[in-house]
Amino acid sequence: MRMERIDTRVASGFRDFLPHEARARQAMMDRIVAVFERHGFSPVETPALERLEVLTGGDPAFAKQLYRARITDDDEPLGLRFDLTVPLARYVAAHASALSFPFCAYHIGNVWRGEHAQTGRYRQFVQCDADIIGHRSTLADAQVLMLVHDIFRILGLAEKTLLRVSNRAVLNGFAEFLGFDADRTGRMLRAVDRLGRQGWEAVAKELEASAGLDSQQIDAVQELLTLGADSPEALLDEAHRRLEFATQSHRGVDELRELVRHLDASGLPRDAWKLDLSIARGLGYYTGMVFETMLTGSEAYGSVCSGGRYDNLIGRFAPMELSGVGMSVGVDRLFAALDELGLVPPAGTAGVAVLDFEPTAREAVLDLTRQLRDAGITTTLYLGSEETLKGQLSWAVKTGFPKVVIMGAKEHERGIVQLKDTVNRTQEEVQVAALPGHLKH
Amino acid sequence: MRMERIDTRVASGFRDFLPHEARARQAMMDRIVAVFERHGFSPVETPALERLEVLTGGDPAFAKQLYRARITDDDEPLGLRFDLTVPLARYVAAHASALSFPFCAYHIGNVWRGEHAQTGRYRQFVQCDADIIGHRSTLADAQVLMLVHDIFRILGLAEKTLLRVSNRAVLNGFAEFLGFDADRTGRMLRAVDRLGRQGWEAVAKELEASAGLDSQQIDAVQELLTLGADSPEALLDEAHRRLEFATQSHRGVDELRELVRHLDASGLPRDAWKLDLSIARGLGYYTGMVFETMLTGSEAYGSVCSGGRYDNLIGRFAPMELSGVGMSVGVDRLFAALDELGLVPPAGTAGVAVLDFEPTAREAVLDLTRQLRDAGITTTLYLGSEETLKGQLSWAVKTGFPKVVIMGAKEHERGIVQLKDTVNRTQEEVQVAALPGHLKH
Repeated sequence: MRMERIDTRVASGFRDFLPHEARARQAMMDRIVAVFERHGFSPVETPALERLEVLTGGDPAFAKQLYRARITDDDEPLGLRFDLTVPLARYVAAHASALSFPFCAYHIGNVWRGEHAQTGRYRQFVQCDADIIGHRSTLADAQVLMLVHDIFRILGLAEKTLLRVSNRAVLNGFAEFLGFDADRTGRMLRAVDRLGRQGWEAVAKELEASAGLDSQQIDAVQELLTLGADSPEALLDEAHRRLEFATQSHRGVDELRELVRHLDASGLPRDAWKLDLSIARGLGYYTGMVFETMLTGSEAYGSVCSGGRYDNLIGRFAPMELSGVGMSVGVDRLFAALDELGLVPPAGTAGVAVLDFEPTAREAVLDLTRQLRDAGITTTLYLGSEETLKGQLSWAVKTGFPKVVIMGAKEHERGIVQLKDTVNRTQEEVQVAALPGHLKH
Repeated sequence: MRMERIDTRVASGFRDFLPHEARARQAMMDRIVAVFERHGFSPVETPALERLEVLTGGDPAFAKQLYRARITDDDEPLGLRFDLTVPLARYVAAHASALSFPFCAYHIGNVWRGEHAQTGRYRQFVQCDADIIGHRSTLADAQVLMLVHDIFRILGLAEKTLLRVSNRAVLNGFAEFLGFDADRTGRMLRAVDRLGRQGWEAVAKELEASAGLDSQQIDAVQELLTLGADSPEALLDEAHRRLEFATQSHRGVDELRELVRHLDASGLPRDAWKLDLSIARGLGYYTGMVFETMLTGSEAYGSVCSGGRYDNLIGRFAPMELSGVGMSVGVDRLFAALDELGLVPPAGTAGVAVLDFEPTAREAVLDLTRQLRDAGITTTLYLGSEETLKGQLSWAVKTGFPKVVIMGAKEHERGIVQLKDTVNRTQEEVQVAALPGHLKH
């Protein structure tokens, strides 16, 4: 006899999803997959656990957030993946001979990070990634942004989202002009990355404290990051003027110019995106175009879809020069935002309930249940403990079934059912043979 | 400069899926979900990591296979779930007030077990589970078996699968009649569970060595397990006779009798299932109906869908009496079997390729690409390094696109495209405005 019950809590930072949440999340992912497929992307799958060096090879910054897993203390620990980009790079290097390039891949799955629970972040979340690998042009950058726009359009959020686009070469070139090494450049980029969340004061403080910029340099960065102009073209002209001597920045400006032309030609409305040179993306591996997607009016959620171009990632694993550009939708963050905005469909019950209140009609009820399901109708057979028609009916109404099928011995004899419409509060007799067709219309 | 490249191997016991495999697996799961929904089941989601006591609370046998995960050595380790049934039990106990009972739930996700890699088993695999919780009758047992049958029918495998059904009370009652305690009963059931894979000799040896049965008892078990009869009813009559004094077995026999009637009434063909009293299922928690699903002619794969009734699982977590009955499809094992049987669709490329070989037509090509995608047509824009029409065409044929859209400056001027059918090797001119409609038919 067990004396103590086991606590039902999930571990801190993790969570369950109730049926209506799970269904809404799944519907969201199904729609995203449909867009990926429509844009000609193919699915890949990698395991949740990878050898540690695969995950930590490039960026030790993640070690603090990485779950290590093993069975016995003698085993070499494996790592739970913290994103899908690094595993994809390994996958492409491992399976290059079986893939055709440029390879347009989508990759969906859980990732795990040891976030501090008090920040409202979760330690397990789903990412939906898409990447074009093996093509180093702004045409591929434009394809990724079109894909992102299409996803938010399908989700009914085109009017509520703004793509903010930059190119990492702009800030990298500026840092090079200032004589910064890679480490100091990284600290500068991470400081800039805070702008959206924490404002300029915090960024300036961090630029001084962490990256060691002097006040003149900080002013120059601020001027560059907060450039405003009437059009993307004017903004790029102005940036080019200010960065005249930071020649490494010019590639970034030129690529953005090309990108603007591709986006216009592809029909992306200009109010769906803007150039914003302050978009830095903290991750070390970006080298070209970078972008974030904000929910307008709900910027506090941060970016719900981000990405960019990386040149060196595959090279970690194989002697290949394969530039990639990709995007990642944070389904959980997006879902939380939609939930707060009241855009998640409420819990509902679909289809018909078939009641089962007379033992002599049970065989006919079971047969009818199968017939309805065979016709593709979502059908729930009553399995509760209420024995009376009245009790079962009130369960069906309370549970929210829009239609209820009633067949006792009397109905069975006559070859009919009573079909109750719980929304309009009507009831009609329908021939058993005609019921599937009737319910489908 | 990195001098050494990181090995692209996945960890032992894990694997990647190539695009055509990932797509076929996803299509399989989508079909299974459609059946779950049609039978009125609702989705639940639980995290991959649970507090250790949740997972190990009942059955320490799993500790050997359990992955423990943590970030630093000072953290309390969490466990990676090894099945979906235990997390579901916790979920139901935790959220009972938000659910309505009987609760028909489906639950899909990865589980992890430290299987020995040499057995051909993988350490991460997907389970698709469905459970009816809160209803203790054979009607729910029948609903689960109908659901299983429907899944294999939708997968095109109805003719290739056989459901083997028993009731744990039969063997439990027999063990009780022999005076066995729970531990010895468990060892007996685990020995019997080997019958399908290892034959009677191995089972007899194990019954003696592990459960301590004498030769007379072993003979009695063999007679019971290998009972044959012309009909399920005759088999149950015979079992009842042989178990006359093992009165605890009678509940099992009686429940199977009811189940047979429900399955007949529901229209499950008698050649789709059989009673087989040797089905024991090793897991400790089953208490009533149990079943396995074999691919006929490929029995070596073992059961591809199993399940049964458990009475005490929710009670581990909350003072509730909620009996459950459920099923679990082993998607990976099923997929491996289908692959070997040649039933997995080959790698193919769907939709149209739009070529991009004249810079002056690029804007029109980008616009057309968006139009096709907006019309719901799977469209891949050419992004490779071939610059000539001929080179791009040969890429499209090699990659396997059934249709190729060709628009150079000449075609653009005339408002048409050349549409190449690579299967029938034909080519026709189509007006740009008419192309989406043309491709949809």
